[in-house]
Amino acid sequence: MSELIFNQPSDDKSELEDAGDFTPRFDDRGLITAIVTDAGDGELLMVAHMNANALALTIQTGIAHYFSRSRGKIWKKGETSGNLQTVKEIRTDCDQDAIWLKVEVAGHDATCHTGRRSCFYRTVTLEDGKPMLTIVDDDLHFDPKDVYGK
Amino acid sequence: MSELIFNQPSDDKSELEDAGDFTPRFDDRGLITAIVTDAGDGELLMVAHMNANALALTIQTGIAHYFSRSRGKIWKKGETSGNLQTVKEIRTDCDQDAIWLKVEVAGHDATCHTGRRSCFYRTVTLEDGKPMLTIVDDDLHFDPKDVYGK
Repeated sequence: MSELIFNQPSDDKSELEDAGDFTPRFDDRGLITAIVTDAGDGELLMVAHMNANALALTIQTGIAHYFSRSRGKIWKKGETSGNLQTVKEIRTDCDQDAIWLKVEVAGHDATCHTGRRSCFYRTVTLEDGKPMLTIVDDDLHFDPKDVYGK
Repeated sequence: MSELIFNQPSDDKSELEDAGDFTPRFDDRGLITAIVTDAGDGELLMVAHMNANALALTIQTGIAHYFSRSRGKIWKKGETSGNLQTVKEIRTDCDQDAIWLKVEVAGHDATCHTGRRSCFYRTVTLEDGKPMLTIVDDDLHFDPKDVYGK
């Protein structure tokens, strides 16, 4: 598979906002933000980052790849857990510095490493003036100990 | 309104993933990613960034505030266009480095400065091996020239 090349973004804002070439705007770390929702019901599943290579692999293979900032390498989501993400649609935003993936999740239909369907399983509210977290989804689709061995 | 203080995040990953204190993990620029969806139908509207002050203002006032990286200051979304965002729910993800706001949009029910409902109005597809953008929503809720005078 030949390498996918992204052209440099235009300095002209109106060109960035139009149809035509997809020219993703990576930040000074070479990363772009990826928002991931379920292609079926639209649920927000996760937020991650991609470098140019991860983005190219995602577009070319139709399977979501990210860049792990903590591990400093490309990460094929679900390679260990089986929860691979098949990309049904890719969108970008007005200034092309974010990507939206609509995906179908294989395996346990779980995206979070805690075993939950979505990484966003807690609400933030003020309690006595303090910002507190409440778990609103505690349905574990898999046991992380079984899957990750830790 | 007294300032909202966020406690320092724990180094213990399992504490970060649990209920209890909300301890947002700002990056080395002091920012956290904010994903914004429509509280009604779940449509992804925009992605932006918040510093601690923008996040505190959002939680305390119930109106979305962001930090503009290009202008280097707090930005009350919709202050010019009237498209204020009333926050119906706030969530965070497993490692507390992203925020999800479910909002109701006032004014023109438009979030994008181009006049469209969502900033994600274009799909990315491969055409003859090149990544190309196609506009899939061209319904302008307002004329940017009227609203922003440019």
